[in-house]
Amino acid sequence: MKQLVTNATLLTFAGPAEPRAGAAARNVGLIRRGAVLMDEGKIVSVGPADMVAKHPDALKGRVHDAGGRVVLPGFVDAHTHPVFGAPRLKDFELRAQGRTYQEIAAEGGGIVSSVHGVRGTTEKELTSLLVDRAARFLECGTTTIEAKSGYGLDKDSELKSLRALKHLAAGGMLEVVPTFLGPHAVPPEYLGRASDYVRFLVKEVLPVVAAEGLAKYADVFCEQGYFDAYESEAFLKAAAAAGLGVRVHAEQLSRSGGAQLAAKLKACTADHLDKADDLDLAALKDAGTVACLVPGSNHFLGLAEMPPARRILDAGVPVALATDFNPGTCPCWNMQEILAIAVSRMKMSPEEVLVAATVNGAWAVGLGKTRGTLEVGRAADVVVYDCTDYRELSYWFGKNLAVTVFKAGKVVHSTLELRT
Amino acid sequence: MKQLVTNATLLTFAGPAEPRAGAAARNVGLIRRGAVLMDEGKIVSVGPADMVAKHPDALKGRVHDAGGRVVLPGFVDAHTHPVFGAPRLKDFELRAQGRTYQEIAAEGGGIVSSVHGVRGTTEKELTSLLVDRAARFLECGTTTIEAKSGYGLDKDSELKSLRALKHLAAGGMLEVVPTFLGPHAVPPEYLGRASDYVRFLVKEVLPVVAAEGLAKYADVFCEQGYFDAYESEAFLKAAAAAGLGVRVHAEQLSRSGGAQLAAKLKACTADHLDKADDLDLAALKDAGTVACLVPGSNHFLGLAEMPPARRILDAGVPVALATDFNPGTCPCWNMQEILAIAVSRMKMSPEEVLVAATVNGAWAVGLGKTRGTLEVGRAADVVVYDCTDYRELSYWFGKNLAVTVFKAGKVVHSTLELRT
Repeated sequence: MKQLVTNATLLTFAGPAEPRAGAAARNVGLIRRGAVLMDEGKIVSVGPADMVAKHPDALKGRVHDAGGRVVLPGFVDAHTHPVFGAPRLKDFELRAQGRTYQEIAAEGGGIVSSVHGVRGTTEKELTSLLVDRAARFLECGTTTIEAKSGYGLDKDSELKSLRALKHLAAGGMLEVVPTFLGPHAVPPEYLGRASDYVRFLVKEVLPVVAAEGLAKYADVFCEQGYFDAYESEAFLKAAAAAGLGVRVHAEQLSRSGGAQLAAKLKACTADHLDKADDLDLAALKDAGTVACLVPGSNHFLGLAEMPPARRILDAGVPVALATDFNPGTCPCWNMQEILAIAVSRMKMSPEEVLVAATVNGAWAVGLGKTRGTLEVGRAADVVVYDCTDYRELSYWFGKNLAVTVFKAGKVVHSTLELRT
Repeated sequence: MKQLVTNATLLTFAGPAEPRAGAAARNVGLIRRGAVLMDEGKIVSVGPADMVAKHPDALKGRVHDAGGRVVLPGFVDAHTHPVFGAPRLKDFELRAQGRTYQEIAAEGGGIVSSVHGVRGTTEKELTSLLVDRAARFLECGTTTIEAKSGYGLDKDSELKSLRALKHLAAGGMLEVVPTFLGPHAVPPEYLGRASDYVRFLVKEVLPVVAAEGLAKYADVFCEQGYFDAYESEAFLKAAAAAGLGVRVHAEQLSRSGGAQLAAKLKACTADHLDKADDLDLAALKDAGTVACLVPGSNHFLGLAEMPPARRILDAGVPVALATDFNPGTCPCWNMQEILAIAVSRMKMSPEEVLVAATVNGAWAVGLGKTRGTLEVGRAADVVVYDCTDYRELSYWFGKNLAVTVFKAGKVVHSTLELRT
């Protein structure tokens, strides 16, 4: 069905088909009285409303008058861990009592407690939880997520996690880019034997993931006490040889070597980067790797420090923003909230956070040529927000201003009737 | 109309009719299979579902099956500045560029820019803006707000602001406790003459406020560069003599003397308290003053420091949490967001934040005997949240889990059909 959104404050992010850095990372492509026409899942016309109105199909479908509201591409959330059972409320309480992430993990909380949860949950139950969670993402304006396994940590449970994501994707609402994060933590069975666990993953699990096409990317938690740079490299090289793209949890809690590894392997993204130094950033820039920042986890953990977004931007590295949605360190599915945190606490500009959540988010999941901008031929992932100034998306916080969400040209969420 | 909410995970906060401190500040009064029966705006039965079911009127009205969901009293947000025109997006951008609150104010931004906004807006337009904003509060589970004037700073504009609040209150949805905050900043006409401005307020504005019953409280921004402790005391004493209760913006940006002043005047609340020392806290405890903490503004300003909630709780001072909703330093109407910030960043417990947002919030607006708990005879302000563990209210962030909101026994917001 054809759909026209007109009378919009349109943010197109139109520009060269590449991750945006430098001045381009601040260009939202604003069209004040804009319109976008969708057909068969794609954008067929976009620009000033007068111009779009001349398209022969402009009035052949449903017309939505945005009433001057802000309209932009669906957010692409390039870093999530949505495949888990129960939320980690006990860890949350312990942290309020002053315990650190590392202390809680050492006491049996942390990632390992989610592992018990996933292992004890069926593929069907996990799928059902994912469908519920997907609705939360969509209603906040996110139309594509990268989604990692990594709370299974054995063959069956990792495969079960990726298959649950495949079922979610098959539902056709929220788009899912699956990532195999087998080396998310060392499972209890391999305590003290991280290298053996990596060898197991490479020999026993990765071949099935690749053969069944269960993941587009492989990822590793390259971190002190988890997987060192050598183990991480062994895993990612095997994944790349099996045809997967690679991404790295790098420099979050310690100087891990993850950023240099990401650059060496020309990874799609290096994620977190709290402790990245200038040499790391220069290497990422040269490699064309996107810095995927997840300040929501710093916020939730109550850390005074944030990822060094300004230093990363100044180094010319393209920045994507993501939720890091997960039960331990970032129980937040709402990209609008992450944008607000990024401005308030990392001093990114209202324009930079929007570029980071759309066009750069799309590049950070390998979909930069088809997602993340409003241009003819792109996917018709379009969201209308209940505000008339795009800065409001990162100004109001603790809110959801999305009123109508189109995924591939279909209305998948709506709280306001915009029909004319 | 009678309304029964049953099959609820009920938080009653039942207990002595006083602000809660010490161990009482952690007691949520949990009833796992609970119910609450409302009639004529009040709670007529509350407790275990089996017991409430025996009430003769239990099934005479509408029945809502909460399905095990968490149900608690409406939030009482004890500190808001909702009477403003446009949001301060320019200040927001400047701060992202690294400018401080004080620098922005010195350049004509800050409170004074909102003053130009209010002065140029009619009472009717302000009322319309307030009605829109009230809907946002209600849909997030807040049923009562304290609401300050303070962006008018001349006679007509302060009275206009308070009258707009009166119109909002007359609408009968969101309950409003109005506060006259004439001394919020020194207006341009009185630059360098704060004392003269206070004399003007006392002589020209306060008598009208009192005569027309436009405010229940008076408040002052006792802060370096705004009003010192002497000017603040002069204003608040005159307000008290005119029959108003008093509250104080105290120790936010500097050691202002506001906390000691609040204690001396036995103020209802001392608000912010970022810089309060142990002597201040001892004085507040002795005076029976509630500490009203607004960590959302620290968050939005990107400050690494938070109000010293644990030190205040340890001192035995009752703590209320509020949004500080305002266009300059906290554009957030959602108390759930403030609870999340309070746990993540001030290390309050999930129980403490709920007590602070309900029963202590009610005491912080002088309504402790009728609001803030689920007990027979109390106002039927009841909210159903889409979770089964009350810790989820402060765990997930950037969200709104409220699905059904009752104000005085009437459904004022609902996104989920709970009828049985």
